[in-house]
Amino acid sequence: MFSGAQVSLYPMTDGFVDVILSALNALDPWRDRLRIETDDISTLIVGPPEVLFPALRDLYATAAASGHHIVLRATLSRGCPGEPDDPICQTSTLANPAQPLAERQSEALAALAATPEKGQIADAQFSLYVMGAGDHMAEIMGCIDFLKQSGTFDRSKNFCTRLTGDAGPVFATVQEAFCRFGPPNGHVTIDLTVSANSPSTR
Amino acid sequence: MFSGAQVSLYPMTDGFVDVILSALNALDPWRDRLRIETDDISTLIVGPPEVLFPALRDLYATAAASGHHIVLRATLSRGCPGEPDDPICQTSTLANPAQPLAERQSEALAALAATPEKGQIADAQFSLYVMGAGDHMAEIMGCIDFLKQSGTFDRSKNFCTRLTGDAGPVFATVQEAFCRFGPPNGHVTIDLTVSANSPSTR
Repeated sequence: MFSGAQVSLYPMTDGFVDVILSALNALDPWRDRLRIETDDISTLIVGPPEVLFPALRDLYATAAASGHHIVLRATLSRGCPGEPDDPICQTSTLANPAQPLAERQSEALAALAATPEKGQIADAQFSLYVMGAGDHMAEIMGCIDFLKQSGTFDRSKNFCTRLTGDAGPVFATVQEAFCRFGPPNGHVTIDLTVSANSPSTR
Repeated sequence: MFSGAQVSLYPMTDGFVDVILSALNALDPWRDRLRIETDDISTLIVGPPEVLFPALRDLYATAAASGHHIVLRATLSRGCPGEPDDPICQTSTLANPAQPLAERQSEALAALAATPEKGQIADAQFSLYVMGAGDHMAEIMGCIDFLKQSGTFDRSKNFCTRLTGDAGPVFATVQEAFCRFGPPNGHVTIDLTVSANSPSTR
């Protein structure tokens, strides 16, 4: 299995380089379990979901604490048939396909309830894509049912679902969506946007 | 059919609000063929691909002309089974599924050759997702073959393909990928990032 993300941080300030470089320190506790490569458009972060999502959460929360309007954007993927297996991605967090949707939803809610807060608000929207054979809309609708019970659900929008709340549970909600819906050997992706300190009225 | 995008513009400057508001004027020539709704995270733009992509291109090129480091991000979708049909989205640009991949690739290249330049460089990366039954990887590999011949192909990255060139052909390349690969009645999405004036070395 190969899992990871292309991640970008957009600080809406003249001092954007400093905000980005300072926020990258938040990845330090996670670096030994991740492979990280940067270019001028995005940073590739390869690793298992249980490390990847907390690392993204900490990157976001540190940038948000600058007080500037910042946006974190990530293209997340697991199980892409075009990517080679990588031992660093080994994980036991993916759903058992034999397990009914209702059980997976309960486990996702239990994981969320155990998630600590980070003290930074996260306004997020994301799309979950489940590729390949099988009933991809059943998995997506099952995921949306979970989201509506998550405590972070804000509303459905065209093409995506909007979450809001503390960064801890918001990133954990996206992690549960990524891991527990869609087949464990399937190709699942998420298109994620998380915004802090926007001057626009919600 | 329902097609459109959730679009955001990120100017990395203290004057980000002014850059965004000025760039939105670039949508004026397209507005009567689009439905546009804005909130604090993104702007929903609903309409057919042949209007949507040139509108995004003009929005990008106008923001890039400010000289600031700016990024345009879009979550594009067509044929999502969860969205209602909308007459504003009527289009004849989607591929005929009976047509072999090689023919679709030739037509995409011919469309690109007829695309005028905009005078702004676009560094882009995007992921194409084809959902539902059928061989989604065959369509994606067919699309990648086309991209490699497009003249805008820069390189493959994990989870996405990177393009570079003038904004005219770059946005046209993404439009061809969106319209000619994947079944016309299928659910196809694109996760797109386009960057201008980055201070990072490529």
